[in-house]
Amino acid sequence: MQLEKVSGETPEQRLSALSLELPPVPEAVADYVTHTQIGSMIYTSGMLPWVAGELKFAGKMGAELTLEQGYKAFQLSALNGLSLLKSITGDLSKIKRVHRLEGTGGATPDFFDMPLALNGASHLINTVFGEKGAHTRMIYSNPSMPINCATLLVFWVEVE
Amino acid sequence: MQLEKVSGETPEQRLSALSLELPPVPEAVADYVTHTQIGSMIYTSGMLPWVAGELKFAGKMGAELTLEQGYKAFQLSALNGLSLLKSITGDLSKIKRVHRLEGTGGATPDFFDMPLALNGASHLINTVFGEKGAHTRMIYSNPSMPINCATLLVFWVEVE
Amino acid sequence: MQLEKVSGETPEQRLSALSLELPPVPEAVADYVTHTQIGSMIYTSGMLPWVAGELKFAGKMGAELTLEQGYKAFQLSALNGLSLLKSITGDLSKIKRVHRLEGTGGATPDFFDMPLALNGASHLINTVFGEKGAHTRMIYSNPSMPINCATLLVFWVEVE
Repeated sequence: MQLEKVSGETPEQRLSALSLELPPVPEAVADYVTHTQIGSMIYTSGMLPWVAGELKFAGKMGAELTLEQGYKAFQLSALNGLSLLKSITGDLSKIKRVHRLEGTGGATPDFFDMPLALNGASHLINTVFGEKGAHTRMIYSNPSMPINCATLLVFWVEVE
Repeated sequence: MQLEKVSGETPEQRLSALSLELPPVPEAVADYVTHTQIGSMIYTSGMLPWVAGELKFAGKMGAELTLEQGYKAFQLSALNGLSLLKSITGDLSKIKRVHRLEGTGGATPDFFDMPLALNGASHLINTVFGEKGAHTRMIYSNPSMPINCATLLVFWVEVE
Repeated sequence: MQLEKVSGETPEQRLSALSLELPPVPEAVADYVTHTQIGSMIYTSGMLPWVAGELKFAGKMGAELTLEQGYKAFQLSALNGLSLLKSITGDLSKIKRVHRLEGTGGATPDFFDMPLALNGASHLINTVFGEKGAHTRMIYSNPSMPINCATLLVFWVEVE
């Protein structure tokens, strides 16, 4: 399921070469903000797998959702993160490094493939940013998720 | 359930206007410390919903606990965090910004309202700190919690 | 189960006095990197309880695993972290402070002793680093874990 290496000079061109489109800039679903900046680091809140507030992946891996759907859900969470980051920086080339991804997915007690699902985000980030996308990650499975969304993804990125 | 905007020049005055009292400074429950400072950032350990070591909210949302109890539990976890932060800074006005809240709650597999429960912390922080309280957040539901506490809350705050 | 205070001038000597050996440097299990550095801070990915890629503790606390096995699993996750940190710094004495441990363990809904299990990591870090090891921590129980590993442990450390 790994994304192909693609041509393109900028993150935006590589997204385009992958035929992936950034969804509208995500909004916070409760009484918080979508991101904060500390020095040159931007930390996001959890990004959902939605488009303009419409949830595209609901339910748990191991139950309603297959691994492949979990992969796609994390990819869409990542695309929402990129949409947010582009709205902040104006240009994804301003991102010097993606340092960490924190991925949480809804899962049943017998689903052990969350790392493969989270690759939906990791492959995208690596493909779009190349060496600047080399990230650490932490992974969580949860018995239940906010509004039953499939995935949440937090970014730690360093900007110019 | 959102807290009203209240009068008061300082965080302490606003807490008082809300008729909320800070609990005693929380202690670590195992072999770790309650907080650490890196540059101007303070990071806490997970704050429990207790008063002087006596747990006020035990059990899981979706089972023993209602959403409203979960809301109150996160509020009490937040008050413990403020008590700790006041003991460190001497004065909550020294807090320049609350950057992130990490909230974890015990929940059953069919409880999808954790964001509304975590608002118990978010509303308090927003009310007490105003714009300085605008925070990102990450949310987790867990099948079981330390000593069966309802909630844990981590603060990332920037100080003068 | 707390580790004894041991003699030794350096972290490496104290590990040796504890008769503990560092496992081979752990590798990433998917499409990410094992650590990143931001200024003087190193953040690791989740460290598994394995030796050279062979998982030593699988399953959940409260089911297949006892508390004591969970303690040992977190200890082994911590030893993998120390092996990684030594490979980065060349010398564990270069670590000025362990600021935070993030521990996640697989658990059943009725297992409330994860703090005691995570002490397997905390006792080791406190014993090996002394005051420099005084760390905050966050703890999570998850219904299912990557490749069914018992534990994952993330380090935040400050280096010279």
